[in-house]
Amino acid sequence: MNTLGKIFRISVFGESHGPGIGVLVDGCPPGLAINDEMIMEDIDRRRSGRKGTTARLEYDLPEIVSGVFRGVSTGAPIMIMTRNTNIRPSDYDRYSAVPRPGHADMVARQKYGGYADTRGGGHSSGRLTWGMVVAGSVARLIIKPAQVRAELLSVGGNKDVEAEIESVTAEHDSVGGLIECIATGIPAGLGEPIYYPVESAISQAIFSIPAIKGIEFGSGFRAAEMRGSEHNDPVISKDGKTSSNNAGGINGGISNGNDIVLRVAVKPPSSISKEQWTWNFEKGEMDILKAEGRHDACIALRIPVIAEAAVSIALADLFLVNRAIYGGIE
Amino acid sequence: MNTLGKIFRISVFGESHGPGIGVLVDGCPPGLAINDEMIMEDIDRRRSGRKGTTARLEYDLPEIVSGVFRGVSTGAPIMIMTRNTNIRPSDYDRYSAVPRPGHADMVARQKYGGYADTRGGGHSSGRLTWGMVVAGSVARLIIKPAQVRAELLSVGGNKDVEAEIESVTAEHDSVGGLIECIATGIPAGLGEPIYYPVESAISQAIFSIPAIKGIEFGSGFRAAEMRGSEHNDPVISKDGKTSSNNAGGINGGISNGNDIVLRVAVKPPSSISKEQWTWNFEKGEMDILKAEGRHDACIALRIPVIAEAAVSIALADLFLVNRAIYGGIE
Amino acid sequence: MNTLGKIFRISVFGESHGPGIGVLVDGCPPGLAINDEMIMEDIDRRRSGRKGTTARLEYDLPEIVSGVFRGVSTGAPIMIMTRNTNIRPSDYDRYSAVPRPGHADMVARQKYGGYADTRGGGHSSGRLTWGMVVAGSVARLIIKPAQVRAELLSVGGNKDVEAEIESVTAEHDSVGGLIECIATGIPAGLGEPIYYPVESAISQAIFSIPAIKGIEFGSGFRAAEMRGSEHNDPVISKDGKTSSNNAGGINGGISNGNDIVLRVAVKPPSSISKEQWTWNFEKGEMDILKAEGRHDACIALRIPVIAEAAVSIALADLFLVNRAIYGGIE
Amino acid sequence: MNTLGKIFRISVFGESHGPGIGVLVDGCPPGLAINDEMIMEDIDRRRSGRKGTTARLEYDLPEIVSGVFRGVSTGAPIMIMTRNTNIRPSDYDRYSAVPRPGHADMVARQKYGGYADTRGGGHSSGRLTWGMVVAGSVARLIIKPAQVRAELLSVGGNKDVEAEIESVTAEHDSVGGLIECIATGIPAGLGEPIYYPVESAISQAIFSIPAIKGIEFGSGFRAAEMRGSEHNDPVISKDGKTSSNNAGGINGGISNGNDIVLRVAVKPPSSISKEQWTWNFEKGEMDILKAEGRHDACIALRIPVIAEAAVSIALADLFLVNRAIYGGIE
Repeated sequence: MNTLGKIFRISVFGESHGPGIGVLVDGCPPGLAINDEMIMEDIDRRRSGRKGTTARLEYDLPEIVSGVFRGVSTGAPIMIMTRNTNIRPSDYDRYSAVPRPGHADMVARQKYGGYADTRGGGHSSGRLTWGMVVAGSVARLIIKPAQVRAELLSVGGNKDVEAEIESVTAEHDSVGGLIECIATGIPAGLGEPIYYPVESAISQAIFSIPAIKGIEFGSGFRAAEMRGSEHNDPVISKDGKTSSNNAGGINGGISNGNDIVLRVAVKPPSSISKEQWTWNFEKGEMDILKAEGRHDACIALRIPVIAEAAVSIALADLFLVNRAIYGGIE
Repeated sequence: MNTLGKIFRISVFGESHGPGIGVLVDGCPPGLAINDEMIMEDIDRRRSGRKGTTARLEYDLPEIVSGVFRGVSTGAPIMIMTRNTNIRPSDYDRYSAVPRPGHADMVARQKYGGYADTRGGGHSSGRLTWGMVVAGSVARLIIKPAQVRAELLSVGGNKDVEAEIESVTAEHDSVGGLIECIATGIPAGLGEPIYYPVESAISQAIFSIPAIKGIEFGSGFRAAEMRGSEHNDPVISKDGKTSSNNAGGINGGISNGNDIVLRVAVKPPSSISKEQWTWNFEKGEMDILKAEGRHDACIALRIPVIAEAAVSIALADLFLVNRAIYGGIE
Repeated sequence: MNTLGKIFRISVFGESHGPGIGVLVDGCPPGLAINDEMIMEDIDRRRSGRKGTTARLEYDLPEIVSGVFRGVSTGAPIMIMTRNTNIRPSDYDRYSAVPRPGHADMVARQKYGGYADTRGGGHSSGRLTWGMVVAGSVARLIIKPAQVRAELLSVGGNKDVEAEIESVTAEHDSVGGLIECIATGIPAGLGEPIYYPVESAISQAIFSIPAIKGIEFGSGFRAAEMRGSEHNDPVISKDGKTSSNNAGGINGGISNGNDIVLRVAVKPPSSISKEQWTWNFEKGEMDILKAEGRHDACIALRIPVIAEAAVSIALADLFLVNRAIYGGIE
Repeated sequence: MNTLGKIFRISVFGESHGPGIGVLVDGCPPGLAINDEMIMEDIDRRRSGRKGTTARLEYDLPEIVSGVFRGVSTGAPIMIMTRNTNIRPSDYDRYSAVPRPGHADMVARQKYGGYADTRGGGHSSGRLTWGMVVAGSVARLIIKPAQVRAELLSVGGNKDVEAEIESVTAEHDSVGGLIECIATGIPAGLGEPIYYPVESAISQAIFSIPAIKGIEFGSGFRAAEMRGSEHNDPVISKDGKTSSNNAGGINGGISNGNDIVLRVAVKPPSSISKEQWTWNFEKGEMDILKAEGRHDACIALRIPVIAEAAVSIALADLFLVNRAIYGGIE
């Protein structure tokens, strides 16, 4: 179940405090130049030392274990992993008895019947997005010359991101953010109606990122308030270019050759240093939890490169599917 | 590519103006009571004679062709179809030369190289949602006693839906709408992180409905502006019930036993009787298009039952996947 | 579960004595000429009036319901079905109480808990191979100019097929047969090690045909008795042509540009007019069963065109998968 | 493409002379005791020091990287790998210019356009079966109390295996073998007609093992020469037990509660020390190749535990699929 894509297939594995984490990439075309430097560029963006993200050091160096020979993809499955070095299981022992609000502690208990490795979020940890970012670096090569770029539009509704982070940190609280992602240079024709339209492929990938609460394409939620005469994008060239882009680059689930535009809402991190009410299983009653340690005040700061990866992976798969069915038939 | 789900698998087929349309449902457990009456209830809700939806008669009577014996599912693939009876190909001939803004005319041309059956939207027509609604009727049986209900919150930003439709119709324009969908009685533990969380399963299904521009769960886009102390839902019982529901019933991609709540934005129908600019391939220049015939002023009126079907189908699949992996292991 | 293939995907539906049977073909490239005449050629070969096959008339005329417009595939899912017209449920009522040896009566009882439609074999009937043959007609267009041909090598170990059938029929018995299938013109490079090699793709399809007990490629079971010096096929050209073909056209799971050669063993039909022992659920003891009616004395007579279809479908999928991953990357 | 199974999903990665190889197991139920000792039992059987298998030391120690916590599966993806320590790339450089008959050297050249890592067979090496054996150890836990056992029936047609190996080794040649695999304790009802019958699931897995040329179930190829009266297995109990087992434990693609019996033919290893003709790409003509180094005289000696793994994996998936669709519905 833990696989994304139909041809270009991504599976991630690992736990936050286990021996290591990684990603298996299947269906990658041969002949692509893949190396540590290329991958580290994206990983560095994800890790980020920016204010508002945790100071915990993560040793993120990738090891390319398979599928790449002399710096080039071979067509065989690509496995890339990294070791966990900062394992502190004791930090997390108490959370199975006192589940943290907003975290997966409670559902892990319900779903896995006590077998889950819940240390640091275990398999559900944001740490696992490392694998998606790495797979995204590979996906970017497949969709070239198309490019995917995401940026943080606002934090807590405030466009002055730094100021907002500072105030939230002072309050020992956390805050959400809004991200926009744009794919340029995408050819028309990607996407398979009815059950693999561009929006389905992308949203399936995007919601695999923890903390995402919503996604919208083009006009998005504003469309619910618009008139058709205002929403329809006039076609202004034989290539299908439009003078507006309420469609977000997609008609009927198929890319139309304009920029693909989407926005995602990121919730505030659940870990805060403020006191919170939750259920205490040992006491059998509600109780106050006060989480310690340093936490990200705003996870949205890290999401742009992950969102880019998710979108690139989805588009790479759509590209290969499209080539399978439509490529070269005369 | 045109299949939804991993165990409970839905495939639809047909074109708006071909011989018929239908749905193939694979992976349905045996022993479920399936009959025309049950299915017609949902189909009637989809068809709807309400003001604001097209007056075109669609003969929607289902024929259960396979997989049901003596009124009960057998475990074999279920195929249910209906015949198209109101086929008027001539209406649509001109749109391959003069693609309608907002429609799939242009991308069909780009993707299928002239081979697509574009009459009435062809395979991309909203008519195809008939199959999803029918599959949804079956899915509802699987997730019982859980229930999925959707309702239209507003049209064009206006909660007085009838008034808004009337004014839009008078302007020969169309309008979008906002829908909320709630699943009650869902057990905790559905959803597979990392790549088949509840949100991914549901959004993949929802974006298979034409005209959807966005989806949000729980707090949704509002989360981007919230603080963690405000967003975290306090756990108030050992079953995981929470006193607020910003999570929308989902933590870490897994259902937490509270209501699953989501909203979807529906764009205004692209077909309007107003004049619009588009590209004219015969003339090789931009041109004014004026669509004739009667059209839906607001497709959002029809979407609730389709959204319910999409969510029910996604949940049914998550339920069966969960039973496969976690059911019965001691 | 009832789907074959990864890109070119085949799903069949229907029961022997239900309203109809058919096939849904997804992932078919647009632009292929598909019509009733082409399909009927294969269907006629399957039906066959040859001695040794049942005289029961099956009305096999195909209706192309979707995915084909003006005689050409559109890229949308293709659904083709036929109606059952010779429905005689009463013939089969007794077999749920007295399961016929060799048939699926007993396992249907065990698996589906009484819900299965077991009339005439229900969904497990050989009648369902109609859909595979129809999908095979489509698949043949995708793999062109490659061709797949199968022939019956022997019946009951006897190369004089007609004589053997005559003697078996006189004895009110049935008999098995051996079929060879050869695919010519297959390009080198099809097949994905490790889990989608040519042999896996083909054998998965072949074993979907009822009554198949074994499959072997190239040297097949004889390889178990051979020396390497005898088995290795010398390469005699830069295209990879070999002077012998013990490999059956496949090395390391990948087509090598030589003919793909395979043989399948077909068991004798389980329905015979001779008396047989089985369990009688009404009596709660073993009992003698004597099946009436006319039956195929040798189902192997009908299998060649079905085997061709199975192999063509598998190759078509491998062809499209190969194009997805390897086509066009420089 | 390199994934086996629908719920219990196996993906292997790595190259014979890369940094390491391994397996990713998705869809494994939580609560299963998984540890190095258990896995090493099967690995040791695969490695085998028996006469006739290569003396090359392989360091096969497994590292359980993810999905297991405190010795028990968690429900998260399980990744288990081992490091390659005996990497000698220079041995294999010449084979891209002078492809070895029977090996994948030639097709790798054709398929991957020079990008493949062909050292020691690369991703197509028999070394990769390590991952299948490890996944098989996990699968065995899922199908318990059912058991799968395989044994070598003959080598080169000779039941005195040791004598045959000795004589073949003396001739610097290699030899094939015949293996029988029996699954006992399998419940009735596994398998999904039409496209996921027991035979399809098992054969897809079996043909993922290099060197397999054929598979047969129950009566197998002998069925082609039999009469129905002889082939039909009389049912002798209400549980479906039969007095003979020509069906090989499968009717209509569904397990019938008797032993599942299958045989596979293993070809002689392609690497022999005898001189052989092949194409020399540098010379542009046929040439004599004489492979050096020590090779397995009979790979069939190692196959039983791998075949057991393949069959266990297929059955585990069928078991979980069956539980998804049929388990617990009243």
